[in-house]
Amino acid sequence: MAGSTYGTVFQITTWGESHGKALGAVIDGCPAGLPLTEKDIQIYLDRRKPGQTSISTPRKESDQVEILSGVFEGKTTGTPLSLMIRNTSQKSSDYSQIASCYRPGHADYPFDAKYGFRDYRGGGRSSGRETAGRVAAGAVALKILSALGISVCAYTESIGPVSINYDYFDETAILTTPTCMPDAEASVKAENYLKECQAAKDSSGGVIACFVSGVPAGIGEPVFEKLDASLAKAMLSIGAVKAFEMGDGILASKRKGSENNDSFFTENGLIQKKTNHSGGTLGGMSDGSDLFFKVHVKPTPSIFQPQDTVNKEGENVTIQIKGRHDPVIVPRAVVVVQAMAALTILDLMMLNMNARMEYLEKFYRED
Amino acid sequence: MAGSTYGTVFQITTWGESHGKALGAVIDGCPAGLPLTEKDIQIYLDRRKPGQTSISTPRKESDQVEILSGVFEGKTTGTPLSLMIRNTSQKSSDYSQIASCYRPGHADYPFDAKYGFRDYRGGGRSSGRETAGRVAAGAVALKILSALGISVCAYTESIGPVSINYDYFDETAILTTPTCMPDAEASVKAENYLKECQAAKDSSGGVIACFVSGVPAGIGEPVFEKLDASLAKAMLSIGAVKAFEMGDGILASKRKGSENNDSFFTENGLIQKKTNHSGGTLGGMSDGSDLFFKVHVKPTPSIFQPQDTVNKEGENVTIQIKGRHDPVIVPRAVVVVQAMAALTILDLMMLNMNARMEYLEKFYRED
Amino acid sequence: MAGSTYGTVFQITTWGESHGKALGAVIDGCPAGLPLTEKDIQIYLDRRKPGQTSISTPRKESDQVEILSGVFEGKTTGTPLSLMIRNTSQKSSDYSQIASCYRPGHADYPFDAKYGFRDYRGGGRSSGRETAGRVAAGAVALKILSALGISVCAYTESIGPVSINYDYFDETAILTTPTCMPDAEASVKAENYLKECQAAKDSSGGVIACFVSGVPAGIGEPVFEKLDASLAKAMLSIGAVKAFEMGDGILASKRKGSENNDSFFTENGLIQKKTNHSGGTLGGMSDGSDLFFKVHVKPTPSIFQPQDTVNKEGENVTIQIKGRHDPVIVPRAVVVVQAMAALTILDLMMLNMNARMEYLEKFYRED
Amino acid sequence: MAGSTYGTVFQITTWGESHGKALGAVIDGCPAGLPLTEKDIQIYLDRRKPGQTSISTPRKESDQVEILSGVFEGKTTGTPLSLMIRNTSQKSSDYSQIASCYRPGHADYPFDAKYGFRDYRGGGRSSGRETAGRVAAGAVALKILSALGISVCAYTESIGPVSINYDYFDETAILTTPTCMPDAEASVKAENYLKECQAAKDSSGGVIACFVSGVPAGIGEPVFEKLDASLAKAMLSIGAVKAFEMGDGILASKRKGSENNDSFFTENGLIQKKTNHSGGTLGGMSDGSDLFFKVHVKPTPSIFQPQDTVNKEGENVTIQIKGRHDPVIVPRAVVVVQAMAALTILDLMMLNMNARMEYLEKFYRED
Repeated sequence: MAGSTYGTVFQITTWGESHGKALGAVIDGCPAGLPLTEKDIQIYLDRRKPGQTSISTPRKESDQVEILSGVFEGKTTGTPLSLMIRNTSQKSSDYSQIASCYRPGHADYPFDAKYGFRDYRGGGRSSGRETAGRVAAGAVALKILSALGISVCAYTESIGPVSINYDYFDETAILTTPTCMPDAEASVKAENYLKECQAAKDSSGGVIACFVSGVPAGIGEPVFEKLDASLAKAMLSIGAVKAFEMGDGILASKRKGSENNDSFFTENGLIQKKTNHSGGTLGGMSDGSDLFFKVHVKPTPSIFQPQDTVNKEGENVTIQIKGRHDPVIVPRAVVVVQAMAALTILDLMMLNMNARMEYLEKFYRED
Repeated sequence: MAGSTYGTVFQITTWGESHGKALGAVIDGCPAGLPLTEKDIQIYLDRRKPGQTSISTPRKESDQVEILSGVFEGKTTGTPLSLMIRNTSQKSSDYSQIASCYRPGHADYPFDAKYGFRDYRGGGRSSGRETAGRVAAGAVALKILSALGISVCAYTESIGPVSINYDYFDETAILTTPTCMPDAEASVKAENYLKECQAAKDSSGGVIACFVSGVPAGIGEPVFEKLDASLAKAMLSIGAVKAFEMGDGILASKRKGSENNDSFFTENGLIQKKTNHSGGTLGGMSDGSDLFFKVHVKPTPSIFQPQDTVNKEGENVTIQIKGRHDPVIVPRAVVVVQAMAALTILDLMMLNMNARMEYLEKFYRED
Repeated sequence: MAGSTYGTVFQITTWGESHGKALGAVIDGCPAGLPLTEKDIQIYLDRRKPGQTSISTPRKESDQVEILSGVFEGKTTGTPLSLMIRNTSQKSSDYSQIASCYRPGHADYPFDAKYGFRDYRGGGRSSGRETAGRVAAGAVALKILSALGISVCAYTESIGPVSINYDYFDETAILTTPTCMPDAEASVKAENYLKECQAAKDSSGGVIACFVSGVPAGIGEPVFEKLDASLAKAMLSIGAVKAFEMGDGILASKRKGSENNDSFFTENGLIQKKTNHSGGTLGGMSDGSDLFFKVHVKPTPSIFQPQDTVNKEGENVTIQIKGRHDPVIVPRAVVVVQAMAALTILDLMMLNMNARMEYLEKFYRED
Repeated sequence: MAGSTYGTVFQITTWGESHGKALGAVIDGCPAGLPLTEKDIQIYLDRRKPGQTSISTPRKESDQVEILSGVFEGKTTGTPLSLMIRNTSQKSSDYSQIASCYRPGHADYPFDAKYGFRDYRGGGRSSGRETAGRVAAGAVALKILSALGISVCAYTESIGPVSINYDYFDETAILTTPTCMPDAEASVKAENYLKECQAAKDSSGGVIACFVSGVPAGIGEPVFEKLDASLAKAMLSIGAVKAFEMGDGILASKRKGSENNDSFFTENGLIQKKTNHSGGTLGGMSDGSDLFFKVHVKPTPSIFQPQDTVNKEGENVTIQIKGRHDPVIVPRAVVVVQAMAALTILDLMMLNMNARMEYLEKFYRED
């Protein structure tokens, strides 16, 4: 069935596989009147593309986005935006072996089980390249959110055993360190750890964190389209993500109520919380505090050690993966987390605009 | 907007609040020909209802389900099933105080922020009672899954610091211990811990785990309707859930690829995995292993200690919550986790039936 | 699959069959703050119920609606409204014959073909009684539209060969004539024609027309959720409807462009049209003129003449239908047309509220 | 909001406007294993493209489709198919006048009312060119339906006053006459009529009819996703369509039940109908007979006579449209009707596959 569409009123449909002609996204439901150029999108795609640092694959992909529709005289028209990125650097020869084997930790086996066969070149649709469409669409959502006073900040919190020190949090470092850590010192340690992993033909997992400022209280739709539930789905829909924590997350399960409740207080007429264990949601709706959540990412499954597996004929075999693979998924997934968060929040904010009769009356009677 | 509907082809819509006349669910898209009686549903509702043990609120709610439509001569007809549970034991007087105050850890404030006012009686739609409709609908999904050879087992893994010992796992204990722990000894410890919490006018968080057996490989729809992503949303949509882990979950972020990959092997023509770190999904689709996931639940926010908060007039006040509240949410949420898992998996299994041309050809050409 | 849910953000789910315990609708996405009582709904249900005139079945159904959730202190809360109507007057004995035969013009055969069996009592879910849930939900939509300055007027335009004379159009007569014709004289003729049909054990078709005033220009979402396309689906989803015309409808296919185009003009700063052949839509969006459409309804298929048909065993048989049946469907369907129009227009108006960036900015930055 | 997506499990999203860089469609939910090449699609696009006959605009558009994703080794993979058609022949200079005026019969005014401005070049998204994406996607649906034994035949039934004679129905003529009439003699008359219209700087409406053979009984989902209701929406979603008739359509409203009911009979174990007034549906589901419906299309609104209208400044003006316009929309819309019918029927057939428990049990237990 159709599983490549995301969102209700700000809706994206992504398409494309690792080694096809192109990848892209269609954004349907983008409000009219947003100034938009390809540069607005390219800046985010550039953060996702490989070949930029020693800890990412040396594949070169230019990942140039083209806006094919939906913009006229520099502004969105309200009609669908079609965004396309041509594939340019695919070496299909690298992937001949995996045509017949099921790589451990990869989607090869379930793809065959579901569809009867698969595009085995570079993982096909299960490749990380699939996220290029999400990032392109997310860039548009981020621009809209920015116009509404909302900022979305995602970053690497840890790689393997190396975590950032929040005392040294430096937002600018997210864009300058190869790890996307907001702590240059931790980043160096993480790079060293990754080099050890590479030397051992191994890879590492890590954690991405994200906070979102400026979201007004009341965003999210009880009971199934809750803000935190929607964020959880958005994040787990990214390949390799294995866990999601809202606010203090798993710690909440060890705590007592007196430790976990966030007290409200008021200052200058503004209702606030003394703490933010909840991560900015209550009852599945934003509570006016910053949203905060974490995403746990598994290690790159493509490692260069020999691994036991099974081939399509159902025989036990050993596979030795070749090719170009990142030793860690996390840094390139940071912008994907940011994009998916933006898409999720914007959609729920648009849906919130008809929560009350007074909103409808104001819109249709006073206009 | 409409946030009370869940699922694409097996679709439920729940309705009702804590102190309204009734609660319920409409199931739309239930296949015809399923034998179904109210008893099939009541057995699950009885596991959710309060007043049964020393560690749950002494409120008595009979929670009798009535099937209002969709069943004829003992079988589902393919038309919507309307399930209703009358509310019987509501004491609205208990809740007069919270009409004007925002309880810490509760949804009161975001509800007011979104809708302008709220049904303050017993939490209204944000009450745990809302889940009665989910459980009733989930019972139908569980019966269908059972007919397809699939079992869904949810249980309490920990309460505060007390965890079960998997060496003593006893599935029958889930239904007999007041904690829903599959380990009677751990359950006694957890009960004692909860009594301490109660004595201290406090509450406790905990963890629910769930495994699902019998799901064939290939269930889940790349890229946004992934099985694990859908489960994450389903679980976070349950009030008080703050984190979701698929398989080894957060541990994956600390691991190396060589530790985290599950090797395939084949035995008697059956493709299997040597380990199941992934929790039974790869690329967002089932991989033929048992599904396994964990859900982290925050402590009951209604505690009997004085708490700082704000009232509707925006004044700083102290609130002292009265009434009848569980010292822990986890045991009564176990069956909700089971229900939401069943609804999610069944919907994706039904959607999987048209994944291949050969399925369509077999269905329409050979019938 | 789920086919009983209608709408995107103002979403209804109807349930119930002719001879079940009850029928109803859940409205999800109703804005908070709408004053609502059961009387607001009952007034529309009373117009649909049978047993009121000589030209409708003498069955007595009280059709009392009960609001089970979603209203607090006289206003909608933003949470789902559950509306229930208990069935009271079903005589299942009348329908024993049709259990084994496929009535011509009825849904018996396709129901069996699809689901393997059917609730044969009174047509089950394919009964006209199914529309009670739509009317109840539509009453809420009509109340909201009214608050936004929009009125929806449906009426009988013709029954068999008898049409109203638009020169004598009298809106008040819609509620006072047994035919729902806005022309008392035509109504008397139509009643006489129906008596002839009844005497001949026959039935009659007819036409319902509807105009909607006050809809601002721009409602409808290109290209698949066009206003006229959505109205067409809404109308054809009503049992027995066989054709839909927007504006001049079928006449447009015989015309020349110079005859069919509506010229614009401006008066007092208001853009208007000299004619309204289009029925108030252009490009699938409202154009600021009154919406106008027609719905063609087939004759009641339950006639009392012997008819050739087939039984479940696949044998050719003759059936003679008994029971209580209206000689014409049209008058009781008028309020159903009105309800479905209101549901459709309201949903699209709510969706229109985020068509432009300036709307989002005004909502979120100035609030 | 998102209005450019159609279908539930076989879902298309179209994008692109008349004078943008390209147009296209993404098909999500296409079953895996369908042999597919660009030729399969091009054949249908070629029937839609202009510049082919004296009665269509002399614009030349090559309308070459490119499959960008979703096909591997000649077969669909189950992942999204992205279909793109580059725009090549746009002369934006032709449209400078309409930037400031609202053309009668066009969507200019509602577009401005909704979005605040519009892409005025060639009608933008409201151009007939938008249907290229539908036709490309429909070609894939048609190929799947063909594999399931279903054929969809659409043709011109009338243009202005000239109707085909069903006694001379010749299906092959649909593809050879410039009018797409299955009656060469009527086609000549229609061409002559159109030449008169052109000479008078005028245009003509017409009727498209469609029948579909091979659809099994039971397709369509009561009560809102009925087959005929879905077809009605599909057809009215095509620009310029003003009316839809299922089977005998508007005639049903003039008839008696004894004239309108279709009697069943059985022959060689096959249940059939003696007549097909219903057009192949009962209760919104297919009844095993051929589907038959008609679509009424208004005359081309772009006529070359001077017309009264209003400009963006709200002044009364006269407009004289220039450029290249078809004197009739019907012939080029025939393949669009065919495409939309195929998309609608296929989606409902895929949804029908889980109508019964026995289908689920057969699929999951015996596979």
